[in-house]
Amino acid sequence: MSFQRIAIIGLGLLGGSLGLAIAQRLPNASTAGFDADPATRDRAAQLGLVGTVCGTAAEAVAGADLVILCVPVGAMSNAALTFAEALPADAVVSDVGSSKASVAKALAQALPHHTIIPAHPVAGTEQSGPDAGFGELFAHRWCILTPPADVPESAVEKLSAFWEALGANIEIMDPDHHDLVLAVTSHIPHLIAYTIVGTASDLEEVTRGEVIKYSAGGFRDFTRIAASDPTMWRDVFLNNREAVLEMLGRFTEDLTDMQRAIRRGDADKLFDLFTRTRDIRRGIVEQGQDDARPDFGRKDH
Amino acid sequence: MSFQRIAIIGLGLLGGSLGLAIAQRLPNASTAGFDADPATRDRAAQLGLVGTVCGTAAEAVAGADLVILCVPVGAMSNAALTFAEALPADAVVSDVGSSKASVAKALAQALPHHTIIPAHPVAGTEQSGPDAGFGELFAHRWCILTPPADVPESAVEKLSAFWEALGANIEIMDPDHHDLVLAVTSHIPHLIAYTIVGTASDLEEVTRGEVIKYSAGGFRDFTRIAASDPTMWRDVFLNNREAVLEMLGRFTEDLTDMQRAIRRGDADKLFDLFTRTRDIRRGIVEQGQDDARPDFGRKDH
Repeated sequence: MSFQRIAIIGLGLLGGSLGLAIAQRLPNASTAGFDADPATRDRAAQLGLVGTVCGTAAEAVAGADLVILCVPVGAMSNAALTFAEALPADAVVSDVGSSKASVAKALAQALPHHTIIPAHPVAGTEQSGPDAGFGELFAHRWCILTPPADVPESAVEKLSAFWEALGANIEIMDPDHHDLVLAVTSHIPHLIAYTIVGTASDLEEVTRGEVIKYSAGGFRDFTRIAASDPTMWRDVFLNNREAVLEMLGRFTEDLTDMQRAIRRGDADKLFDLFTRTRDIRRGIVEQGQDDARPDFGRKDH
Repeated sequence: MSFQRIAIIGLGLLGGSLGLAIAQRLPNASTAGFDADPATRDRAAQLGLVGTVCGTAAEAVAGADLVILCVPVGAMSNAALTFAEALPADAVVSDVGSSKASVAKALAQALPHHTIIPAHPVAGTEQSGPDAGFGELFAHRWCILTPPADVPESAVEKLSAFWEALGANIEIMDPDHHDLVLAVTSHIPHLIAYTIVGTASDLEEVTRGEVIKYSAGGFRDFTRIAASDPTMWRDVFLNNREAVLEMLGRFTEDLTDMQRAIRRGDADKLFDLFTRTRDIRRGIVEQGQDDARPDFGRKDH
């Protein structure tokens, strides 16, 4: 019924966490993994992120009934091509990429005869690489599946059950809608964070040391997000361009509106926005997607 | 040598934390407090935030050698006027406001014959009100003092020693420079966070429920900041207008540049920014202004 031999292609934060989560929560399944970087393969073997670290992607997928691509979204197609020949005919192929329409297209072209169910576990940290993985990464987080219409329902159910076993909640979504939702809940926040951190680094009047020292006023949370993996995020923006530009347009309209309110001293307009935004925070805390404690329980040093 | 009778005007997150910090770390000093809101006064008394909760600001400052205003920056002047008559001639007056040039001016006008040393402890959480206070709020955070040139050095040293006793590090700064530094490390991040949360709430294509569910992709950190006290933040933007508009102009220039890079598919430009921004994060973690653990040690529920 459930997947027995799982191949993980890419052994960074996501791939490593996936291997650890499977070992903890699905002890009867075996895992084989591959990473294009030899140093990452060595480290993954030392850390025991997967049962077997293979020297090629083709070896990793041999005999697999589930293959999960954990590489930047721009690398999905090439990664899939490296193991296409070795992939068992009945294997289900999935991924963990942050954009879905472009990944669905890339994988369908690379593996035209296989069952492909693109997926996106909405979970992560600003860390990257094999040392960043931990088995609880997906617990209580949402995993969005974007199955094409022709994929058998049974395969979608099997993949859903797999992610549920790792602690995730499942949502089925259209890939274009996924890309729009994630543009606003993830991609634009990252772009903004990267940009403001860049702006702050380039000021002449304010030194980098000052920016660091007084970051507790709000900036430090942006730096956390802006420490995320550069390759992954470059690919996200290149692969979800339209939804990102659409949402960015709305954000900059709203920001211009606030800029005008500040310039004009429109106290009511500022107060109104600052009051409205509290509701969404309340929903996030109530639904367990964040922690209400001051500073999330950050400890002083 | 040190302050013995400290009056705290305003008993929300900052005022309450100050009272608790003094009780924990300066047990020989006595505290009296006042808040314009009777419900806040009652709650402050129940929680023991200060030694004595007074019915008027004038009562609270009677006999004080240090008065700290912990009210929104737009309310400083009126708050000072309510106790001006009762203020001992040799009392030092300070505050905790997030903008300094306008506060310096307002307090100098309201209390022309007193020693005024504006201050800003760069510490806070998204919580507000008397229940949000905790005595460790200022530990390992920076407190910026912006003393006017005519204030005796001894008073500045005494106030520095006071904040150091509460665990803070001290920096002396020109008020205009403070306002520029904090515009970038605190005010603009808050404005951006409020704005993107507002943008996300108003979308037609993406529901509020979806925004909440998938907030773990980055958005949730913005909602935390955007849950901060609306009155306080309205006043910050109205009182630090020029520095905020200046920094906002630089940010939107940089954001437009990134928008163009995404539209043109300029992979190198994106990668370059996303790589550069990691350095500042490293500095913040190294200097103990944030926690490097994944998700700051957020616990799953």
